[in-house]
Amino acid sequence: MKNTIGNSLTITIFGESHGEAIGCVLDGVAPGIAIDDECIKAYLSKRRPSGLTDTKRCEPDNYKIVSGVFEGKTTGTPICIIIPNEDKKSADYNFGPARPSHADYAAHVKYHGFEDYRGGGHFSGRITAALVAAGGILLPQLEKLGIFIGTHILKCSGIEDLAFNPVNPSKDIKKLKDSSFPVLDEVKGQAMVDEIEKAKNTLDSVGGIIQTAVTGLPSGVGEPWFDSVESQLSHAIFSIGAVKGVEFGAGFEGTSLKGSEFNDSFIKGDGKIVTKTNNNGGINGGITNGMPILFNTAVKPTPSISKPQQTVNFLTGNEEELVIKGRHDPAIIRRICPVIDSMTAIIIADMLCCRYGTDVLTKGEKLWNMD
Amino acid sequence: MKNTIGNSLTITIFGESHGEAIGCVLDGVAPGIAIDDECIKAYLSKRRPSGLTDTKRCEPDNYKIVSGVFEGKTTGTPICIIIPNEDKKSADYNFGPARPSHADYAAHVKYHGFEDYRGGGHFSGRITAALVAAGGILLPQLEKLGIFIGTHILKCSGIEDLAFNPVNPSKDIKKLKDSSFPVLDEVKGQAMVDEIEKAKNTLDSVGGIIQTAVTGLPSGVGEPWFDSVESQLSHAIFSIGAVKGVEFGAGFEGTSLKGSEFNDSFIKGDGKIVTKTNNNGGINGGITNGMPILFNTAVKPTPSISKPQQTVNFLTGNEEELVIKGRHDPAIIRRICPVIDSMTAIIIADMLCCRYGTDVLTKGEKLWNMD
Amino acid sequence: MKNTIGNSLTITIFGESHGEAIGCVLDGVAPGIAIDDECIKAYLSKRRPSGLTDTKRCEPDNYKIVSGVFEGKTTGTPICIIIPNEDKKSADYNFGPARPSHADYAAHVKYHGFEDYRGGGHFSGRITAALVAAGGILLPQLEKLGIFIGTHILKCSGIEDLAFNPVNPSKDIKKLKDSSFPVLDEVKGQAMVDEIEKAKNTLDSVGGIIQTAVTGLPSGVGEPWFDSVESQLSHAIFSIGAVKGVEFGAGFEGTSLKGSEFNDSFIKGDGKIVTKTNNNGGINGGITNGMPILFNTAVKPTPSISKPQQTVNFLTGNEEELVIKGRHDPAIIRRICPVIDSMTAIIIADMLCCRYGTDVLTKGEKLWNMD
Amino acid sequence: MKNTIGNSLTITIFGESHGEAIGCVLDGVAPGIAIDDECIKAYLSKRRPSGLTDTKRCEPDNYKIVSGVFEGKTTGTPICIIIPNEDKKSADYNFGPARPSHADYAAHVKYHGFEDYRGGGHFSGRITAALVAAGGILLPQLEKLGIFIGTHILKCSGIEDLAFNPVNPSKDIKKLKDSSFPVLDEVKGQAMVDEIEKAKNTLDSVGGIIQTAVTGLPSGVGEPWFDSVESQLSHAIFSIGAVKGVEFGAGFEGTSLKGSEFNDSFIKGDGKIVTKTNNNGGINGGITNGMPILFNTAVKPTPSISKPQQTVNFLTGNEEELVIKGRHDPAIIRRICPVIDSMTAIIIADMLCCRYGTDVLTKGEKLWNMD
Repeated sequence: MKNTIGNSLTITIFGESHGEAIGCVLDGVAPGIAIDDECIKAYLSKRRPSGLTDTKRCEPDNYKIVSGVFEGKTTGTPICIIIPNEDKKSADYNFGPARPSHADYAAHVKYHGFEDYRGGGHFSGRITAALVAAGGILLPQLEKLGIFIGTHILKCSGIEDLAFNPVNPSKDIKKLKDSSFPVLDEVKGQAMVDEIEKAKNTLDSVGGIIQTAVTGLPSGVGEPWFDSVESQLSHAIFSIGAVKGVEFGAGFEGTSLKGSEFNDSFIKGDGKIVTKTNNNGGINGGITNGMPILFNTAVKPTPSISKPQQTVNFLTGNEEELVIKGRHDPAIIRRICPVIDSMTAIIIADMLCCRYGTDVLTKGEKLWNMD
Repeated sequence: MKNTIGNSLTITIFGESHGEAIGCVLDGVAPGIAIDDECIKAYLSKRRPSGLTDTKRCEPDNYKIVSGVFEGKTTGTPICIIIPNEDKKSADYNFGPARPSHADYAAHVKYHGFEDYRGGGHFSGRITAALVAAGGILLPQLEKLGIFIGTHILKCSGIEDLAFNPVNPSKDIKKLKDSSFPVLDEVKGQAMVDEIEKAKNTLDSVGGIIQTAVTGLPSGVGEPWFDSVESQLSHAIFSIGAVKGVEFGAGFEGTSLKGSEFNDSFIKGDGKIVTKTNNNGGINGGITNGMPILFNTAVKPTPSISKPQQTVNFLTGNEEELVIKGRHDPAIIRRICPVIDSMTAIIIADMLCCRYGTDVLTKGEKLWNMD
Repeated sequence: MKNTIGNSLTITIFGESHGEAIGCVLDGVAPGIAIDDECIKAYLSKRRPSGLTDTKRCEPDNYKIVSGVFEGKTTGTPICIIIPNEDKKSADYNFGPARPSHADYAAHVKYHGFEDYRGGGHFSGRITAALVAAGGILLPQLEKLGIFIGTHILKCSGIEDLAFNPVNPSKDIKKLKDSSFPVLDEVKGQAMVDEIEKAKNTLDSVGGIIQTAVTGLPSGVGEPWFDSVESQLSHAIFSIGAVKGVEFGAGFEGTSLKGSEFNDSFIKGDGKIVTKTNNNGGINGGITNGMPILFNTAVKPTPSISKPQQTVNFLTGNEEELVIKGRHDPAIIRRICPVIDSMTAIIIADMLCCRYGTDVLTKGEKLWNMD
Repeated sequence: MKNTIGNSLTITIFGESHGEAIGCVLDGVAPGIAIDDECIKAYLSKRRPSGLTDTKRCEPDNYKIVSGVFEGKTTGTPICIIIPNEDKKSADYNFGPARPSHADYAAHVKYHGFEDYRGGGHFSGRITAALVAAGGILLPQLEKLGIFIGTHILKCSGIEDLAFNPVNPSKDIKKLKDSSFPVLDEVKGQAMVDEIEKAKNTLDSVGGIIQTAVTGLPSGVGEPWFDSVESQLSHAIFSIGAVKGVEFGAGFEGTSLKGSEFNDSFIKGDGKIVTKTNNNGGINGGITNGMPILFNTAVKPTPSISKPQQTVNFLTGNEEELVIKGRHDPAIIRRICPVIDSMTAIIIADMLCCRYGTDVLTKGEKLWNMD
């Protein structure tokens, strides 16, 4: 499915950076969930550019829910969310010179020249606003079931934030809730901001690594092999343009440990079986084991930079120097965090629906504690 | 889909480590492809345990193709491959003590105690033999279309192999073809073997990082967003039990580069547009750009070790010390390489079918050069 | 997939009868297809109520394409079409008394009382306007490839139209093109209109049987078993609320023939292999055989009638007499024809994409004649 | 998905009429279901040829479950069932002359001549044995949840059986349980048998209409639009080769009723809301309404007849007379009944899993009565 993901709870996205609107259709959401506009707005505002470290394009994200909600609550039928594009400057974009690391050239071949090239068209990060609006519906409902999701910047421009407590990141997640720059250590956060501004001033950009935790999931969720929790989450996370790596638990670094160091011993916890460490990131054999899910996402430096770059113009076939105009972010690392939270919420909600049925988002614990 | 993956070309797997047989159903393969048994056997033998670094369980992999092949060629209808389990020692396994880092506990919760616990049951790496047999059908056919896939051990126990040439790994891939221990630098390979044996002698295990390259793909393959090449490949690769990380191109390390350093400039190549570097691993905006696809896979140390470990017996609820019997690998890093190759071949073949139709595996270039 | 259908070319629908808007996301359409607004409007007008035989609710169907079209042509990325609901009279609907033969009660149980009950909510025929708009994009493009789709009223209130010429319905299809009441025999058409008005005057409604033909499809399209042409088409056609039966070729009546009477002999046609009769409706073993596809659809009488009916109020649990207010059709048999055409176009286009790749809608014959 | 159907509970089929074996992989079945071999054998024996009215090919159906069952119970992981082909006479089949009404020609075009042509290859009714074996696992489990499925021959060669009691077919279904020729009126059954023998003696074949009922389903199952109960069931039923029509409730005949005659009034039943009549076949708006599901299936006369037929030889391109050798059924109407029961069981089980989660087959009422 090209622009649709999910098995029971699904999302379909549409729109282009400089088109009339972007949006999504969120289907399979249990009926009876109250829509909290303040909450959706809060998530959208976390993703919205602000201040010196972001693009100057500032979309107000005046979203409209055109279906699937009645008298303030979800009906169980598809929820279509439309977000108009209101702050466009399409004249900044040219057709021909492929912007390096962008989809321009690959899309040109794929769509035979009919692609909307303005601002990356359908490949633009702009479309992630629709994912965040969907997250604004699902995340509060998951929290009502005791499932919390949080993402912070683990590393940016050589500066490292504290990592989540791997066996109990609840407090860490809470701390991120109202943070404007999602880090656990604010001093490190300020240092990151400084580095981003420095990159911007040198007409350059930076990337980074972000870390996500999910707490409160029952064990036994996910499927062996092709619908492993890792498979489903990575599929979703790699959908986001700038992502170049996903690792769970100890990930790449964990590969240099010995088995005796890596293995997470089982111990008796608070009335249930837990693990002492969490190098597996809460997943064994593709199935949740009741520990927090932990994963890191590698975000490449923003492709759009103001420095001159070498490229080929696919219309003329000639090499040329390109200076990207348009408005762009020196780093999307902050803005991508709510996108990852939302994408994670969608996949987690879908996995719960697959395991426990379409009403799980409203019936939750009742369903997974029925044994 | 739990044990089925793919959109047009699909594979469904089944079986347990100590059941009667494991196998797969490979569907959507174009008609008229000659089955080369020597080739299937060669791939299976690359995955088979051998020598000191592997488990002593040695399955002959006497596979049988029971459908979908007629007079030596694929018919276009589902190919069922059955591989009997012939070398089982089920008595080595106990029900109760959850082996750390294994699926035992998560599966026990998920399947309410009805899981086949012997040797990990359906979660066993044994099932990957079926994937490799499927790869033995697809890989040679992809090669006929000029598409080559190769995987080597990039890092194991602190020892690093040479990396693929990122813009032209063709020679490197060729070199791996008949290698019994897939590395580019054989001295490093021997050092790795030594480390694996050392781990084995200390009743421990090691993990590592493997690197995969795919050459010869046309640009324009894959979909934006939810069926990006990264999404589809990572989904498949994370299906394999021991995998804890997947990164494309410069991956996690690339996140510390500046945009101006990371971006792959477009240049005129040999009659077509290519990039000077390949930090994006051949993929822009989720779509192939004609450069080699490059990705790394993090393989955790084998969970089964002979050292005593702490665990909880899920039958009694008590903590206890566990000494794993059974036969197991001190490292699966060598044996997983042909599995990754095969899984990659399945996904690449499927993406080609989606873009060019169900006959692409036999018509290949004719289809993607028709513009 | 609840509100999404298709494998390569997909459609996702959303909206409620009395909500803000209804619409769809059409994905996987080849790039470069010109959007002909006159054509979309023409199809929508075929579906729009008109005159004495239809409901008095008259929506102008001021659709808006908010994505996936650039400079008048499809881009290859998702096309979102929004159609506002402008002529609503929600006060006509009550929550509680289940309208017989409507989804009210079943939806009430499924959605636990959170359903939008006004005018059937998401179950309303109103949503089919979005399908017809999508058909307005696909049908003209299929015609450019020589594939024609037509639907007429075969039977209504005991009056029978002529049937399509089973081996060559091309002229019949052409005749329907600009027909305001789609029948092959206009005298019979007028008689049907009279019967519908008669039903209306007695506060009642009628149903009927419609017949659809598809010409110009190459043979070899479709899949054996679970994606047979019959399976895929019937799946789509049965999605439409009022449909209670689908039969291909000679269908139910054909079951009383002997094999020697039913079998379609192969003969040499105009440079290709054809069949003498077409009792199989152009499909053998689930695969197209190059003959016209023929199928009939049973449309039940419109559930909404003005006569008093017996029902149960699901709020009070009491039996009560119900007199349906609201505006409704005494027959939807005319209005459903363009819906069936559109739904058929979507599925046919999808099957072609699966067989020949995502560009088939623009490359057509070039692809299926390449052998 | 070509040879795979289902969303949560899925089945993948494989095999050819004259290949080594046919079989299936049934995935997503809840763990802990006891496998009753007597029951599987009983279903297979209902489908097996017997006596004068069937083909002389008699396969013993010595099925083997090679995975997914441990200590006699389902594990929750994929169940692969293999059924060897033991009674083959491949020499009876020729490559070239397309048998009318068979898949031979369509398959030849689709698979470019690489199809296994012997006995219809993958298109053979032989593959339905695998569906029946799967039904032998699911049907008894559904019965434990109070869900009963039954199919009888409603019409054959002009002779009509009694129809199911539309509002309460429980007794009728029970009656069919041990019937060797599934009819409600045995006198009519004998008349049908006589007609079939008569057809056989004239080297001809007959078709018929079969009727299926499902009782005990809760209301609220199924989805609006594209996963309506009608859509999902018809998709599955039309997968079976000989099926040319599917109608629900009053179906095609019901289209000549007035709305006031067709509509099923709601009344208070035994502590719940029921309908007085059941012209909608238990489905409103695509969702179950708690009444029995009723549908009819049109089965065309068996294509294989011994009478000479006209055809084209696709190798020579010439018209020729064909006399089919091989062994074939003068009517498959009896043998198809357990296939429809099984296919229905698969889809019903899948719909329940989607609504109530993967454990519904063992937890059943507990889940749907939890409100």
